[in-house]
Amino acid sequence: MPRYHRVVIVGVGLLGGSIGLALRRRGLADQVIGVGRSMQTLSQSLQKGAVTEVSLDLSAACQNADLIVIGTPVQTIADFVMQSCSVKLAENCLVTDVGSTKSTICRSLTGKEHHYFCGSHPMAGSEKTGVLHAREDLLAGRKTIIAPVEQTPLPVVERTEQLWQSLGSDVIRMSPESHDQAVSLISHLPHIVAASLAANTDQKLLPLTGDGWRDTTRVAGGDVELWRQIICENRLPLLADLKNYVQSLSAWVAAIESNDQNKVEELLQQGKVIRDALSNAIGSK
Amino acid sequence: MPRYHRVVIVGVGLLGGSIGLALRRRGLADQVIGVGRSMQTLSQSLQKGAVTEVSLDLSAACQNADLIVIGTPVQTIADFVMQSCSVKLAENCLVTDVGSTKSTICRSLTGKEHHYFCGSHPMAGSEKTGVLHAREDLLAGRKTIIAPVEQTPLPVVERTEQLWQSLGSDVIRMSPESHDQAVSLISHLPHIVAASLAANTDQKLLPLTGDGWRDTTRVAGGDVELWRQIICENRLPLLADLKNYVQSLSAWVAAIESNDQNKVEELLQQGKVIRDALSNAIGSK
Repeated sequence: MPRYHRVVIVGVGLLGGSIGLALRRRGLADQVIGVGRSMQTLSQSLQKGAVTEVSLDLSAACQNADLIVIGTPVQTIADFVMQSCSVKLAENCLVTDVGSTKSTICRSLTGKEHHYFCGSHPMAGSEKTGVLHAREDLLAGRKTIIAPVEQTPLPVVERTEQLWQSLGSDVIRMSPESHDQAVSLISHLPHIVAASLAANTDQKLLPLTGDGWRDTTRVAGGDVELWRQIICENRLPLLADLKNYVQSLSAWVAAIESNDQNKVEELLQQGKVIRDALSNAIGSK
Repeated sequence: MPRYHRVVIVGVGLLGGSIGLALRRRGLADQVIGVGRSMQTLSQSLQKGAVTEVSLDLSAACQNADLIVIGTPVQTIADFVMQSCSVKLAENCLVTDVGSTKSTICRSLTGKEHHYFCGSHPMAGSEKTGVLHAREDLLAGRKTIIAPVEQTPLPVVERTEQLWQSLGSDVIRMSPESHDQAVSLISHLPHIVAASLAANTDQKLLPLTGDGWRDTTRVAGGDVELWRQIICENRLPLLADLKNYVQSLSAWVAAIESNDQNKVEELLQQGKVIRDALSNAIGSK
């Protein structure tokens, strides 16, 4: 188990807060310093027990830190990594993040950040954001993808792996590009599909909705600014997946228009086969 | 509270079975006869306690019945209503169904069926079908739409309302056409959206999926034959909704293609507003 003396969490939201809680409850960290822009949010994270101290000064907080986790929206992560790495860190310091996209972040770092940084993405987001929803067991049993680049030293990769494992997460190593391709299909496309479905629903019909509509649209309640950044960061893989998806709906339009019942059955079957394969896929991991 | 002497449930699946269980546990029925094509399924419904007797002979079972509920796939319901109404029923007998579409069923009945029949749709379906998933509280707190036509006598409408209320359901009266328009948008379109999303997912990525993908695609695991019939019965409203949906995804494609971050934000916001309105919409009912 790793053990940290001075942890800095930049952006103490759902994920950052849950990491702080888990590190503290598992006795893995002495100090956990929450860094943010607003004292109001920071005091919530203190009350919640996610951090032991708070600060508005990133550079001061990072001095001699041995673990820095950036939990801010994706378009700001690379900047915070660079700022964190510009002060004197502990020799074996690990800097990582929890962003939902990886290529732009990991590829934009070119200098000494590679002595400390390896990108991560714990697959444990939710439409419920903010430190008030943080839970010490949020990462337990979840997958975390880590996305080293060619310049990332092996010890940094290993430290990243150990961090997430110590919080109960299964670690999977992927390139930033493979990561972004995968999450485009399994997370970002579903978000757009859900948002569009919700937007298409007449509000007057909401009282009639059952579990089907509610589950299918759940993620559409997520934070707009977070998701705008994710979608724009991952636009090229997502654009390709979205176009394929629209194409597959055209097959549905054609089948229903021509009342081709066999084709409707075939299309339903194609979806069911993959959905039903989920329990095996999870069971086997 | 209504009280039934002889209830017949034709097609004892998730809904039919749950109705049988609820009628028995609430002491509303003396006899509950399950009618089906296979003794294997029927004996499951006996073991489950959803019915008190089983029969393969619809006409014999319906003799003198005072409540008949048709729980078969939608394309077969009108035929079963006609067969049920061709035998001697109790004077105040109510014949109803639980089908997810209403226009074709309710409009195809033209004769003496209107002395007994009023269409219903309890909004309590699930991707988990079959009597083994039946629950006595499945209808409690749920909405049930009833869809009388001009020929339906008022006492039949009232009996239908009383039936669902006695099982704990909130009853909403709509024309068959309004019903079909509504469920196209809140149930049938989400099914196609989910099936298509699942079909577009590379099986190798399933172990990486989180709650987002899982919830968004959940309904795609539903029974293919049931859903083929629902989609084909309700094809015209659904075709219009599906085309609108594809159109709204084109706005997403354009926004992402041109990297129009303001437009992405606006589209996300449109979905979130409706999704967030759900809790108020439910709370106010």
